[in-house]
Amino acid sequence: MRGARVGFVGAGQLARMSLGSSIALGLDVRLLAGSFDESAARVWPDVMIGSADDAAAVRVLAKSCTVTTFDHELVDTVSIAHLEDDGLNFAPGSWVMAVSQSKQMQRNLFARLGFNGPAFATAAVGQVSVLEEFLAEHGQEIVIKADRGGYDGRGVFLCSHRSAAFEFVDSLHRQGVSAVLEARVPIDKELAILVARSQSGEVRSYPVVETVQEQGMLRELIAPADISPALFNEAVRRGESLVEELNVVGLLAVEFFVSNGSLLVNEIATRPHNSGHYSIDACVTSQFEQHLRAIVGMPLGDPAMRCRHAVTVNVVGVDERTSPNQNAGLAASVAGAHIHIYGKRPRPGRKLGHVTATGDDLEDVLLRARRAAGLLMKGEA
Amino acid sequence: MRGARVGFVGAGQLARMSLGSSIALGLDVRLLAGSFDESAARVWPDVMIGSADDAAAVRVLAKSCTVTTFDHELVDTVSIAHLEDDGLNFAPGSWVMAVSQSKQMQRNLFARLGFNGPAFATAAVGQVSVLEEFLAEHGQEIVIKADRGGYDGRGVFLCSHRSAAFEFVDSLHRQGVSAVLEARVPIDKELAILVARSQSGEVRSYPVVETVQEQGMLRELIAPADISPALFNEAVRRGESLVEELNVVGLLAVEFFVSNGSLLVNEIATRPHNSGHYSIDACVTSQFEQHLRAIVGMPLGDPAMRCRHAVTVNVVGVDERTSPNQNAGLAASVAGAHIHIYGKRPRPGRKLGHVTATGDDLEDVLLRARRAAGLLMKGEA
Repeated sequence: MRGARVGFVGAGQLARMSLGSSIALGLDVRLLAGSFDESAARVWPDVMIGSADDAAAVRVLAKSCTVTTFDHELVDTVSIAHLEDDGLNFAPGSWVMAVSQSKQMQRNLFARLGFNGPAFATAAVGQVSVLEEFLAEHGQEIVIKADRGGYDGRGVFLCSHRSAAFEFVDSLHRQGVSAVLEARVPIDKELAILVARSQSGEVRSYPVVETVQEQGMLRELIAPADISPALFNEAVRRGESLVEELNVVGLLAVEFFVSNGSLLVNEIATRPHNSGHYSIDACVTSQFEQHLRAIVGMPLGDPAMRCRHAVTVNVVGVDERTSPNQNAGLAASVAGAHIHIYGKRPRPGRKLGHVTATGDDLEDVLLRARRAAGLLMKGEA
Repeated sequence: MRGARVGFVGAGQLARMSLGSSIALGLDVRLLAGSFDESAARVWPDVMIGSADDAAAVRVLAKSCTVTTFDHELVDTVSIAHLEDDGLNFAPGSWVMAVSQSKQMQRNLFARLGFNGPAFATAAVGQVSVLEEFLAEHGQEIVIKADRGGYDGRGVFLCSHRSAAFEFVDSLHRQGVSAVLEARVPIDKELAILVARSQSGEVRSYPVVETVQEQGMLRELIAPADISPALFNEAVRRGESLVEELNVVGLLAVEFFVSNGSLLVNEIATRPHNSGHYSIDACVTSQFEQHLRAIVGMPLGDPAMRCRHAVTVNVVGVDERTSPNQNAGLAASVAGAHIHIYGKRPRPGRKLGHVTATGDDLEDVLLRARRAAGLLMKGEA
């Protein structure tokens, strides 16, 4: 009588938003959560408490599941590789997770595949001479990224001064983290694409979308992106060659810059992604259903949009008291605004939810999404 | 930080399909379930075990919730009225639930509102003379319905012989249930409409749909119905006058017959309804989100369809072994088929799930929905 059981390492909003799809598909789900208060653990009955870093906990989870996947990248991939050796099934696998954790591995991979990107160098712990040479070649306006552990803009430093560069790299090295140095490039636009690949190797791409970032965090998303067919197709080709190269089973999100008209690859994530939340309300198959289909061995669904335009606006915490829950009724008064609340404690800068609006007139869709998100967060538009 | 908490009396598939919406809207939900194995209880962490018939259990549930609603009609409305007197909040309220439980009250209501319907009479327990007179006037071809307790065709008897009529009415009376006698009318088509009414009295109607019943159970649904604007508008007017008349807070489903070109009201239900499952995949706001919005005091969402045609085919059990879970992968291979599995133990004739397909060409949509439902249930189309 049973279908597959999917394990989630982590119980954040990505796991939470997967639950509607897992329920509809009749899949069992088991969560490994840090506490019952986490976003997905609050709304699911089958929760194991433990740390995503704890190999013993991940082993117990994975042994009880058909396939185990990840809500975030903050896992120990060496332990996961050992568990795979013991026959446990992870999707994406340890190698893909290792790449998605490491900005350095990603830059090396993109270079090997011949993708355009900014000039870069990597400074392993202690290798300060690399920074010296990079500054000499590219000037003081560079970008420095922590190789691992960063997210939503954390771990990324837009450097303007030589001394600040040494300070930031030094602080990373003291934490045992190497640094990726990148030349700063002019950014016309930021784009993203989601590509799904199934167990059997079937590949389906979502439309290319435009993302608007603020301080490294996605604030608004416009689907599809208003770009030339040539750029659109190049983004799709990049995404599809990456899922093939990495043998991804599940979803791959690729973030790009358009710089002086050409497409530069920025970074990847191998899971459902903030740039794909619009798909819940705007596509035939949501990214969450698609990821589940891919990892349990089902055929992939149709990623096509069901509307002309979709805009997602993230709802980001302003303080520790104001929660979107109180304002759902206000936001719901905006016609055609789809509200998604994550059930997380409010904190300044924390993603607490999002709103997606859809329609034929992009200006109107943008206004409605922004208005509903403003009402949801602050009780005012 | 919290939003409202919604109590559900009952934990069947209607409660289950409400969970995706309650999660997105940030609502807390608490279920009163007969066991942890019930459809919604399997996928929700906050479950109280108890009977929907047990006033003490319903009291405990309702006291802990902002508003309490119903997964089914099988509740004791007298107890619920007492709980309302104590200040507990139910939506829909006890009077609406009483009407939705009773075919006799419904027929009397429709007659009072001047709606067209078949000729009818009601035979209270022991009043066999009413049957005698009804048969004398309308012949042996009549429909006999249990006043209460029937669903999915149970409790409805298509009578062709006088002796069988007396036998059926006698069996109802022995169970203490009165009988509703209806003249049999020719049925051109069966229609249904869903109307939502919010706490503040806002009313929104979904499109009129055509339902195809087999042995009293909904098998296929076509949205929107292919009928004249006059019939369409009459169905909307009937539905809207019923929610006003009953002061419904939540959803009202009205089922109609088209007989010799005119619209006859058949029966009502005051909750999300099988005839509205298409709305999950085909409308801006699903019936489940709409019901939640209405009962927690939010503005109603847009009920409009997002596609030209939608078809829902129910997946009904064939035996006690074959479960749709095993076949989800097969059904998922049908393009654009949205799969919904209820997590219920298979039994012949039991609703175990449904499939909705959407698109521009009705014939194609029908074929895809039927094919996916066939694959889901039997592993063959």
